[in-house]
Amino acid sequence: MHGLPSAPPSSVDIREVGPRDGFQNEPETIATADKVALIDRLARTGVRRIEVTSFVRPDVVPQLADAREVLKAIDVPAGVSRSVLVPNMRGLESALALRDRFEEVGVFLSASETHNGRNVNRTTDESLRELDAVIARARDEGLRVEAVIATSFGCPYEGVVDRHRVLTIARRLTDAGAGEIGFGDTTGMANPVQVYEHFKVAAAALGDGVQLTAHFHNTRGQGLANVLAAMQAGCTSYESSFGELGGCPVPAGATGNIASEDLVSMLHEMGVHTAINLPALIDAAAAARAVLGRPLGSHTLVAGPVDWKGRR
Amino acid sequence: MHGLPSAPPSSVDIREVGPRDGFQNEPETIATADKVALIDRLARTGVRRIEVTSFVRPDVVPQLADAREVLKAIDVPAGVSRSVLVPNMRGLESALALRDRFEEVGVFLSASETHNGRNVNRTTDESLRELDAVIARARDEGLRVEAVIATSFGCPYEGVVDRHRVLTIARRLTDAGAGEIGFGDTTGMANPVQVYEHFKVAAAALGDGVQLTAHFHNTRGQGLANVLAAMQAGCTSYESSFGELGGCPVPAGATGNIASEDLVSMLHEMGVHTAINLPALIDAAAAARAVLGRPLGSHTLVAGPVDWKGRR
Repeated sequence: MHGLPSAPPSSVDIREVGPRDGFQNEPETIATADKVALIDRLARTGVRRIEVTSFVRPDVVPQLADAREVLKAIDVPAGVSRSVLVPNMRGLESALALRDRFEEVGVFLSASETHNGRNVNRTTDESLRELDAVIARARDEGLRVEAVIATSFGCPYEGVVDRHRVLTIARRLTDAGAGEIGFGDTTGMANPVQVYEHFKVAAAALGDGVQLTAHFHNTRGQGLANVLAAMQAGCTSYESSFGELGGCPVPAGATGNIASEDLVSMLHEMGVHTAINLPALIDAAAAARAVLGRPLGSHTLVAGPVDWKGRR
Repeated sequence: MHGLPSAPPSSVDIREVGPRDGFQNEPETIATADKVALIDRLARTGVRRIEVTSFVRPDVVPQLADAREVLKAIDVPAGVSRSVLVPNMRGLESALALRDRFEEVGVFLSASETHNGRNVNRTTDESLRELDAVIARARDEGLRVEAVIATSFGCPYEGVVDRHRVLTIARRLTDAGAGEIGFGDTTGMANPVQVYEHFKVAAAALGDGVQLTAHFHNTRGQGLANVLAAMQAGCTSYESSFGELGGCPVPAGATGNIASEDLVSMLHEMGVHTAINLPALIDAAAAARAVLGRPLGSHTLVAGPVDWKGRR
């Protein structure tokens, strides 16, 4: 007997989002040099994609006010794709002043009207109209674009988010030129049954030409169970954050992304390949813990990799 | 489309093991009155089975030296089954002095020879011979017996533990009269592929007359993913610990059981019934946190239940 009832993929892609999704939620200021050192370290773990920062208003997200300095200073090996998140055209234009320093752009909105309003002070229609232009501009610059749909699996203000609405937004974004759709479980409301159904339906609705990515938070400890369900539905692309850093600006208290170390440990133990060296990733998370000066949520950071004593 | 490729069960049984597996691993002494109050609170969450203490040598496990006092003092509603863990005949005889205060007995050994030696200072054969007698004596007293096989999914000293060996031990224990076998992932080495295969094979090998129980630790954050895999293999019985308390005496630093709150949250969100009231369980974990005076690993304890705003 081999594998689960629906076999997991032989390999998956992982985008490390800790330097953006994680750092922006830290209560204390992180020195730019520390961010750069951590990103440079992450870039040498074998991970192929890193979201390195976000070009947002410094009064709204002061932790990422040094986006330009970070982008200029990081030293990432060839083959590691740097992505920056931009909330709007102004953010994209700021980023484009350093066009040669990154390969991918991330844009986002929330499927939930209320969450989108609280997060970016716009209606979803307003966001979509702006993103049409942002995506087109990024594509003109030769950039690959991921569009993240926050609250895809539930909204802390509205509750249920209609799946048809999420997929309609996704289609609009792919029509605009996004090559990747990230479905964000922004406040950790997703469960494995829902996730499995979602990725089955999304793959059928959006077709083969679009990369579908799962962005889970471990708010209620179910993040890796959701990964398992998504893999069984055929999803091969995941976002995670070293140390289990992260959260969401709204509502306050929403906890972190799934921990990259825990994700990679599970995948490797299951025989699913990533390009990542787990001990190196754990070292990077330990370095983040040292910089932040507090315990982090990651379990494998504490326990270390499984030790099979060379017998496997 | 409904459900996972292999549908989860409509309901599962949960045994709360925090008062034993959790309390025994706490570094600070917990007052007997606090233990009793926490158990009494747990017993009113709807959970049907609680492992309340263990009759072990007080010099080895000082945290449970008050086993008699706890067992005498707790006040558990009708329908809640109290179990006590005993390591050997001496422990069982001590427990039997309070025979009317519990309904179930737990016994244990490790599938790994090395782990068994370090944990109970016996060979597995020595343990099995003693457990034959212990199980027989407990059955004579009308008690139901669960036998837990620690390190069923891997050993921190030996690495791989042969599945055939685990199942041979399980068969020996059911032949001796154990009505339930708990497969313990004592140091969190299990992964979902392995777990799925294990429970498929175990169900076929051990037959319908035996309750098969999964006892996962969240050492590397994969505990609930392992639950999901076990459910897909047909497992309907789980052990967990409120607050993510727990660990293992050997090796030092092995972290806690899966959190009961996180487990129940996931199950209820998936539409899998338990008898447990999640807010009441979270309140119990919060009470434990107040007694212990430190943050606990449980995520749902921090985040609270998913709030669908009455829309589901």
